[in-house]
This record gives sequence, C-alpha cells and structure tokens, in this order.
Amino acid sequence: MIKVLIWNEFKHERKSETVRAIYPDGIHRAIGEALKCDDIEVRYATLEDENCGITDEILADTDVIIWWGHMAHNEVPDEIAKKVQSAVLSGMGAIFLHSAHHSKPFRLLMGTTCNLSWREDGDMERVWAVKPSHPIVQGIGRYFDLPHEETYAEPFDIPEPEELILIGSYEGSEVFRSGATYKRGNGKIFYFQPGHETFPTFYNESVKTIIKNAVYWVKSDYRKVIDCPNIKKIQ
Amino acid sequence: MIKVLIWNEFKHERKSETVRAIYPDGIHRAIGEALKCDDIEVRYATLEDENCGITDEILADTDVIIWWGHMAHNEVPDEIAKKVQSAVLSGMGAIFLHSAHHSKPFRLLMGTTCNLSWREDGDMERVWAVKPSHPIVQGIGRYFDLPHEETYAEPFDIPEPEELILIGSYEGSEVFRSGATYKRGNGKIFYFQPGHETFPTFYNESVKTIIKNAVYWVKSDYRKVIDCPNIKKIQ
Amino acid sequence: MIKVLIWNEFKHERKSETVRAIYPDGIHRAIGEALKCDDIEVRYATLEDENCGITDEILADTDVIIWWGHMAHNEVPDEIAKKVQSAVLSGMGAIFLHSAHHSKPFRLLMGTTCNLSWREDGDMERVWAVKPSHPIVQGIGRYFDLPHEETYAEPFDIPEPEELILIGSYEGSEVFRSGATYKRGNGKIFYFQPGHETFPTFYNESVKTIIKNAVYWVKSDYRKVIDCPNIKKIQ
Amino acid sequence: MIKVLIWNEFKHERKSETVRAIYPDGIHRAIGEALKCDDIEVRYATLEDENCGITDEILADTDVIIWWGHMAHNEVPDEIAKKVQSAVLSGMGAIFLHSAHHSKPFRLLMGTTCNLSWREDGDMERVWAVKPSHPIVQGIGRYFDLPHEETYAEPFDIPEPEELILIGSYEGSEVFRSGATYKRGNGKIFYFQPGHETFPTFYNESVKTIIKNAVYWVKSDYRKVIDCPNIKKIQ
Repeated sequence: MIKVLIWNEFKHERKSETVRAIYPDGIHRAIGEALKCDDIEVRYATLEDENCGITDEILADTDVIIWWGHMAHNEVPDEIAKKVQSAVLSGMGAIFLHSAHHSKPFRLLMGTTCNLSWREDGDMERVWAVKPSHPIVQGIGRYFDLPHEETYAEPFDIPEPEELILIGSYEGSEVFRSGATYKRGNGKIFYFQPGHETFPTFYNESVKTIIKNAVYWVKSDYRKVIDCPNIKKIQ
Repeated sequence: MIKVLIWNEFKHERKSETVRAIYPDGIHRAIGEALKCDDIEVRYATLEDENCGITDEILADTDVIIWWGHMAHNEVPDEIAKKVQSAVLSGMGAIFLHSAHHSKPFRLLMGTTCNLSWREDGDMERVWAVKPSHPIVQGIGRYFDLPHEETYAEPFDIPEPEELILIGSYEGSEVFRSGATYKRGNGKIFYFQPGHETFPTFYNESVKTIIKNAVYWVKSDYRKVIDCPNIKKIQ
Repeated sequence: MIKVLIWNEFKHERKSETVRAIYPDGIHRAIGEALKCDDIEVRYATLEDENCGITDEILADTDVIIWWGHMAHNEVPDEIAKKVQSAVLSGMGAIFLHSAHHSKPFRLLMGTTCNLSWREDGDMERVWAVKPSHPIVQGIGRYFDLPHEETYAEPFDIPEPEELILIGSYEGSEVFRSGATYKRGNGKIFYFQPGHETFPTFYNESVKTIIKNAVYWVKSDYRKVIDCPNIKKIQ
Repeated sequence: MIKVLIWNEFKHERKSETVRAIYPDGIHRAIGEALKCDDIEVRYATLEDENCGITDEILADTDVIIWWGHMAHNEVPDEIAKKVQSAVLSGMGAIFLHSAHHSKPFRLLMGTTCNLSWREDGDMERVWAVKPSHPIVQGIGRYFDLPHEETYAEPFDIPEPEELILIGSYEGSEVFRSGATYKRGNGKIFYFQPGHETFPTFYNESVKTIIKNAVYWVKSDYRKVIDCPNIKKIQ
C-alpha cells in the first residue's frame, strides 16, 4: 500500500466561483479520486489545517507527497517547507504540480529561482512524450491535448533535469519542459506542468494516468536520513 | 586561430536545381562564409573528395569539424566515420547540423539510433532559447523564427543531453530538442537541428550566430587520446 | 519471470588451469547459479556457440543480457555486437562486467573508447557505495572488500554516468568508478567493475547481490524500437 | 580583470595557535596570494565584517566568490546566504572549499543536506584526476598527494555532479568525490574538497593551480536574473 498525501493550498476554490464550479471539493480531492485504488491510500492536507496539516509523524508515514499551491506560497511557514524538503531527502517521493514550481519545498529542493515566463490566455496545450519507454508516460501516446491551460514558457530556471520526459507546446508557439525528474538525497521528484485552477485539467485522462504512474515511480522502499557521522578508521 | 573543417555531402546541391539556387557553391561554403573571421580559418571537405577529404593528418590539424549530410550517409566508409569519432574523443570539437543526426560519426558518438519523427511541409519553426546564459546562444533573444524548415519531432533517440539549450516548435505543434551538447572523451559536441537543404536556413542571422558561437564553445586546447596503459603500482 | 542471458567469452577457463580451478564450468555458470530463483530464468551463450549463441530471436526473448569478455573481444563479429546494441536500444537491459568495458557492445553503446588504466598485482579492493538508497546496492553496507582484484584506475573513458553508484579503491591507492548506470534508447545499462578471471570474485556475496539487484533494475516491461517515421501534420 | 571575493570564516586562525602558525593572516589571504595576477583582482570578506562583508553592491561587483567556513556556518545570517545564492543564480561563479560543503550558500544551491562521513586522523590523501581534459585540472598530472588531510568519505549527499573531475582516496581506503561542477541558474559552481585548517593544504602547488583554474572556469560574462515575466502572446 502506497500512502499518498495530497497537499493543496485550497484558496482559489473557496474564493472564486469559477474555480469552485470545476473543483467543488478542491483540487486535492479531484486528484485523490483519480489515484485511489487497491495499491494507493490517499490522505489530504491543506493550508488551513493546523501546521498546514504537516507534522514529522505524518511525513514519516507518507510514501509520496503531491503538492499544489499558487497564490499563497508564502503562507506556508519556512519550517514546514523544510520538513517537507527533509522528508524528500530521506526518501519520500514528491510530485509538484503546475504552479507548485514556486512552492517553497520545490524551490528548496531545486536550489534555483524556479522562475518561468507565463501568460493566461487559455491556449490549447499539446504535451509531447519525449521518452516513450519511461514508466511515467505508459498509457500515453505520442502526445495528449489539454483544450485550455495557462501558458508556461522557457526559460524555466531549474537545474538540468535528470530525465526530461514531456515537453508542452502551446497555441501561441511557446514550449516548456513540462515533465522532468530529479533525485535529491534518497528521494525521487517529478515536476509536472499541467494543472491551472481555472481549467478542468485534473479530470483529463492522460493527466490522471501520468500522476498515478508518477506515484509508483517516485515511491521508494528506502527511507533513511543521510547523516554526517564521525567515522573510525577501518582496521 | 581556430581551424574549422566543414564537411558536406554536397549531393543535393548538384542534383536539384531548387537546392542549387539556394546554395550555388554548396551548403559548406555558405556556412564557411558565415564563419570566416580573424579567429577562424575555414577548410572544406566533401563526399566526392578522396577519402571524403578526411585523413588522420587533416583531422590532427582540425580544431572543430562541422558536419552536414543527408541522402548519402552510407557512402561515408565506416573507417572514415571511425576516424572522425576518434578525433572527437581525442579532443576535436564537433558540430552536427540537421540531418547529420543520422550521420555515421554522430551515431557512433551517441551510441543510439538517433531516430526521430519528421515531415516535410515547410512549416514555420520557432526556436526557443532554454538557457539564456549559455555561450552558444549569446546574441539570440528569447527565440528566433525560421520561415520554413523540415519538421523534426520527438521522440529523438539520443542520450539525455548534458545541456539542452534550444527547443524548436513548429506550426504543426511538434516540438524538438533542437540544440544539445555532449562531452565524449576529451571532445565537446553540439547538435543543432535547423538546416534543411531546400530552405535558406544557413543565411539566417541567428543560425549563423549560433554556429559561430558553437565553434568557440566546442573548441578545446587539449588534444590527446585517452589510452589504456598498463600502469605500475605507485611506491 | 525475468529471462536472463549470460554471455561469456569462455576462453580463459579452458586455457588456464588457474582460472579453471576457480570456475570449472565457466564464469557464466557461476553467475547463473547466483541468479537463479523463482523470478529469474537463466540461459547461457558463449563465443564458441554458433553466432556466439546470439540471434534476433534469442535477443527478442531476453529481458536482460549479462556480458563477460576479455581476451577475445574482436572475435565477436561486428554484426552480432550491433544486434546486442539494437536490442538494448529497444529496451533489453544490459549488465557489463569487468573487462567487458572493452567489449564491442559496450563500446558501441557508450560511443567512447572505454579505455582505462590497469595493473595486475592482486591488490585488495574496497568497493564503496556512493548512493545507499539505490536499488542496486540494497543489502550492501557502506562498502565491501574483495581480497584480490585486478586494479582498474582512472581515467575511465566513459560518458558521465547518469548515476555513479560505486567507487572502488585499491591497496595501491587507485580509484575507479566501479558501478555506473546509463539509459540508452529504451534500455537500461549497468557497468560493474569487479570480476577478474583469476580471482573468485563471482562467489563473493556482495558481488552476487549487486548483480542480482541489477538484473531487477535494468529489466524493463517496455520493448520497442524507436523508429524514424514520416509523420503527418496533425489536423 | 576577474574580480574575486574570498570569504573566510576566519575563526580557527584566531582561536588556535596551530592554525595561526600555518595561516598567520588567515586562510583567505593564503588563497588570495595564490590567485593574484594580472587577470585576477582579489578582495576579502570575513564573518567579523559588517554583514559578513557582503552586500548587494559587493556581489554585483564580484565575478567569482570563493567560500571557506567550518565552525560558524550558523553565524552567517540566512539573508546573507540567500544574497550569495541569488548572485550565483544570476551568473556569479562560486567555488566552495572543503568544509564549505556545509555552508549555508552551498546547501541552498544544492538543495540537499550535503552531509558526508568524516574523521580527523591526518591521513595522506591522493587526489585523482578523472577528466584529464577538463580546464580545471590543467597542469595537474594523473594525481597529486596531500601529506595530511581530513578524511571525507562517501556517501556525500549532493545532487549527481554534472561533471565529476576529481576523486580523493585516503590512506584509510575511503574515497570521496573531491571535485565536482554544477550549473545553477546562470551561475557555475565548483566544489573542491581539500583544505582542512590544520594542514598547509592551500600552499600545495596542485591545490593552488586547481583553484586558479576554477576561477577562470566558473567566471561568466553573463550576469542577469532569470525573472518570472507575464509575457504577451506573439502576434
């Protein structure tokens, strides 16, 4: 059983009727419904929960965290973000969705600004699979279409991906590294670009398949802090 | 002084009036004219030259090789292709242009099929700079346009680039890793996608700037075969 | 069931009494005995078999190939080596052991000389795990010892490993990148340095564990040639 | 002219007679003396300077920062560490020496714990050049010796180096990735392991050569923040 914790800022859904109409129970629950199965147990946490719903105990009991945030990244306390970073470094898998490129845990793990260029014109996005054999894109063809997405464009200030899996192209001609993997410490990380709050992206079958595949891919059986021991000379 | 050897198959230009109208003296000479300057000395070699115009002596006296080929990759003898591979491994820089993705030296250096998807509909291509600070894209803005190019699409069967510098997007929505760097042995390699023979791509200012930048970037002062010595225990 | 094909040159064992005393049935069978289990089915092929025991049919029915060779790399026909390369690119896993750094299939896949420095003084080797969480080193501690091994030393002319998992250190102070992974095409590759024919390395428990772990790691469910199709514009 | 800022914690030298005997004017000045030349202008900053001797203006006027710290990493304010990180991301080169693996700016840039195993027995260290052609090891042979160094051992919790240039081996058999490069944002980074305060490592000719080479290598002519603009659709 893979224990997945889906963290959602959960602000847009309550502030905006448009967003609420698409995700009445929140983006987190839409993602969770897509993941639940015999292998995967889903829990939720949001910004309004005490400590953002994140404690050392909860993280220690989480195999994979999925993160969505956008307008309130700064309301996540630094110490909570660092707890998430540490859990990933000890082996927890992590999936960062869309505007979570600017979330504190993702920036801490990448070490860069994670800035990008963007515009909100509701362009159609076509997402291309660059590595057909990668476990994360199984069940996806050469590409899939999202009728409307926020446009994210290069340059995207991330370290060179260890695996570039997906590239998005937009009606307006922009391109973006839309699916990328990293290993940090003992943890595996997947960044996935689709998922703007004003579009029903998380109901798209390809998006759901990719996130589910990614849960299996980032999940690790190994969980241990890499520490800094004073060793003895081997005799 | 950087000694550049531009190798061109030089078949299309003589067989097709269309191509000859664009490159009357051959693609190699169009590229060469763009490179010549106080720092760069240009020489040429083509398929019709004896030994393809390539000998150990010539390679030993070359800092950077630029390769264009398309319809006659198989007419380059294996032993010539291996000589080029060896020279790169010893420290010669190499730039492979467009359909040279399927050239023997490039495939030998990559170790993969270097296959890709393609179509010839004369789409406009917009080429995006993914790494604005990279020496190869200095003088280029966020992107540049090629009014017509052959469409190359993913999946492109290459090892994960060490640096992905450019991504192309086409009118028809396809994307392609259009500028990528590798190090192999002591040599530096740049693959650059634009340059179909039926379009005047090599007269484009951005294309010329990128190829010239790449000459400086792949050039190395170090030239030595990595050998396989039977060493002695250090006392 | 994972179908593993162990390829061994099988010359030293018949020419040298010393080697035969250690591996009376050949290195391949020693490795095979260590791998056989409910999940893993082992087959063998050697240089003396017709076509080196390798055909397209056999490769198509192989999940993972393990390769050991040393004194007779050149007796493997180029076309057989290319078949192995192609199978890896289509998704077959591959493990190259010790002196297989110079085997034709490994060199074809790497694109480099794969040269290294070496000496045969029977040094003790200590092999250090650099990535404790990697599936390939599970069951291994910080390091393990081989009482005697051939010394392999840097520089090792390989592309930068995608994951450097093990570093060996020798009595004589040399170091070597002893465990490294690559992806090429749809295939996963592991190079592992221990395994000189005059020492009982393949009976070492850590070595056996690592090779078995690597079989699971390089194995893929995906098997397909990346081809070069003429695509149509998407309407 | 390359403007180098050498930052030193400068505590050991004042607290310990042993260290002061080796570096009477501080580690920073020993490094500085080795670097000064027609091309390189050296400035210094230490923990006792106001704001650690670091302001936005100073960083904007610095091409390359070199960082040494050990016992007082936590006395560097977070906001100063973030300023250094931001300057690197905008294109300033950075060299982190020895125990600076645990400095705040290095950890921010790597995103990992940067933990390692260590012991202080004054082992001889032999440092091996893994990439003979890399500009950073020009003038160095196959290896160089440090009669005494603190032993650093794997696992070293860093992202996979983009280039692994040096591996250290110690009398006690440990190995360590002693020279590694990264690119983050527009900046280039070199981590170099030698340099314990109780040994005269920074007077070693090979160490001085490597640090000087690294200054040239991490230095960039490009300096610009990658920002996060709201772009317009291209017409």
